[in-house]
Amino acid sequence: MRYATLDDGTPDGRLAVVSDDLATCRMVPGMTLQAMLDGAAMPAPGPEEPFYPARCLSPLPRAYQFLDGSAYVNHVALVRRARGAEMPESFWHDPLMYQGGSDGFLAPTAPIRGAPDWGMDFEAEVAVITGAVPMGAGAEEARAAIRLVMLCNDISLRALIPDELAKGFGFVQSKPACAFSPLAVAPRALPGWDGGRLHGTLCVDLNGRPFGRADAGVDMTFDFPALIAHAARTRALAAGTIVGSGTVSNRDGDGSPGRPVAEGGRGYSCIAEQRMVETIRTGAARTAFLGPGDRVRIWMEDDGGRSLFGAIEQNVEALT
Amino acid sequence: MRYATLDDGTPDGRLAVVSDDLATCRMVPGMTLQAMLDGAAMPAPGPEEPFYPARCLSPLPRAYQFLDGSAYVNHVALVRRARGAEMPESFWHDPLMYQGGSDGFLAPTAPIRGAPDWGMDFEAEVAVITGAVPMGAGAEEARAAIRLVMLCNDISLRALIPDELAKGFGFVQSKPACAFSPLAVAPRALPGWDGGRLHGTLCVDLNGRPFGRADAGVDMTFDFPALIAHAARTRALAAGTIVGSGTVSNRDGDGSPGRPVAEGGRGYSCIAEQRMVETIRTGAARTAFLGPGDRVRIWMEDDGGRSLFGAIEQNVEALT
Repeated sequence: MRYATLDDGTPDGRLAVVSDDLATCRMVPGMTLQAMLDGAAMPAPGPEEPFYPARCLSPLPRAYQFLDGSAYVNHVALVRRARGAEMPESFWHDPLMYQGGSDGFLAPTAPIRGAPDWGMDFEAEVAVITGAVPMGAGAEEARAAIRLVMLCNDISLRALIPDELAKGFGFVQSKPACAFSPLAVAPRALPGWDGGRLHGTLCVDLNGRPFGRADAGVDMTFDFPALIAHAARTRALAAGTIVGSGTVSNRDGDGSPGRPVAEGGRGYSCIAEQRMVETIRTGAARTAFLGPGDRVRIWMEDDGGRSLFGAIEQNVEALT
Repeated sequence: MRYATLDDGTPDGRLAVVSDDLATCRMVPGMTLQAMLDGAAMPAPGPEEPFYPARCLSPLPRAYQFLDGSAYVNHVALVRRARGAEMPESFWHDPLMYQGGSDGFLAPTAPIRGAPDWGMDFEAEVAVITGAVPMGAGAEEARAAIRLVMLCNDISLRALIPDELAKGFGFVQSKPACAFSPLAVAPRALPGWDGGRLHGTLCVDLNGRPFGRADAGVDMTFDFPALIAHAARTRALAAGTIVGSGTVSNRDGDGSPGRPVAEGGRGYSCIAEQRMVETIRTGAARTAFLGPGDRVRIWMEDDGGRSLFGAIEQNVEALT
């Protein structure tokens, strides 16, 4: 099953069941995705109507929890390497994760607004929505709690991150509202889902040109059950908890941080990584962070070229 | 107005309006506190009935956002001093704040469950619930958005904090579900509310003995409008956002970290502070963190001795 939430003027929108080809949908009267996850009885969906991704909100327009991992440790290693910092060996067996804001996500096609000196960046990720997870759940219990899969653009303000993280309490100002794909999809409807990871190419275009073509199923050191179990160690997780993978990032065949798409590589899922590779290679970053007029597109296709989640397509706008 | 949320078996409970003397309440049919904050029309409350705090959930049993500040910089300075670390001067003008979990708060009388080696501690705080706050709001706009005030027990796992914070991404495992007072109260119903701070004695008893009697209106370096504006710098805050003050902490008259209640001082709002003062004085902490059988009580009274928010009263239980 593929679910979307359509904007009906209410904070939680209206649940819709979307056809496999993303051409049509059926509205579910009086239902929200959160209510479905809470276990409310599902009324029969209404008549088939055309599906317009531009009418979509985030599948959960607001959520009770968003926890974002850094499961692709290659990304973390690269960030640290570029600034000459050691990455602790423990990062390979103890997941890095932050508590993210979840009170209002951007719609998949809503603009990204920010000041030019904030260093705006996208981060393309895979995310799951869980059912209720008891405190102390192990990986198998966590795996069974995965209800839906979607894509995420975890927007980051790179210029604000160093000072904020130096304070020691994580992200508040430097991680503004993020965006999710129009569709949240049941794992069994995803041929690339192996029970813990989503295999397939996570496509990122910047201003219409290929920027990232990383494989989300490769180099994911911690799978989703491991991330969920990490989060549930000391507390229960409520139904509707979103757990993100962190920026998808592949090493190159030779173990190097990979090459840009333009050079035949898989590219990157955020600008910061490309800048880091530029810095490592030439001593200086060349690619600018996002500015007004830039356009980011994040999506994933099956082997037949069919879009799995619809596309996150966001323009960058100046603060007014 | 004083509001409580009664347990009716649903995740969000049922809204009730509580009398000023906390003796009776009127249920509001079909309403939740979040729906009220979202602007839903309020039906007429039902008939008067006895009010039992033991039936209460957190005023918002689950919320879309919980941001917790460290507004009593004395607390931060003391924590740092005890471990021999310098506190950056910037902490006096740039608020420290973390994104907390909000997917399921403990009821005011629910047990605290944890492993003995987690170093369980309480932190008594004041918290506000906001309406919608636009991105970039200033202090006056933030002040006007404050809808309700309540008390918080921000439970902390002291033994897990150092390693988790060293990873750099803030709290996940070391801040489990926290608890709030039975009542959330409109600022105009609180004589001690000055528009930005709540004046009055925040009472904390541990195992029936006075532990903390700090004045919440004193030594709060950043008031609630400043904390809210800090959070809203790069993103809008949704209606129902909870902003906490951080552990209430007073300096002594001579600028020292104060004395325990048993020695005629105002005491402390968390065990860690008392342990730090013990460490500073004698080289070793004497007071143990929480263990099974311990009982914490947090409340606040008006000048006439009437409870303002009801009491958070939690027993500590071992993990089963």
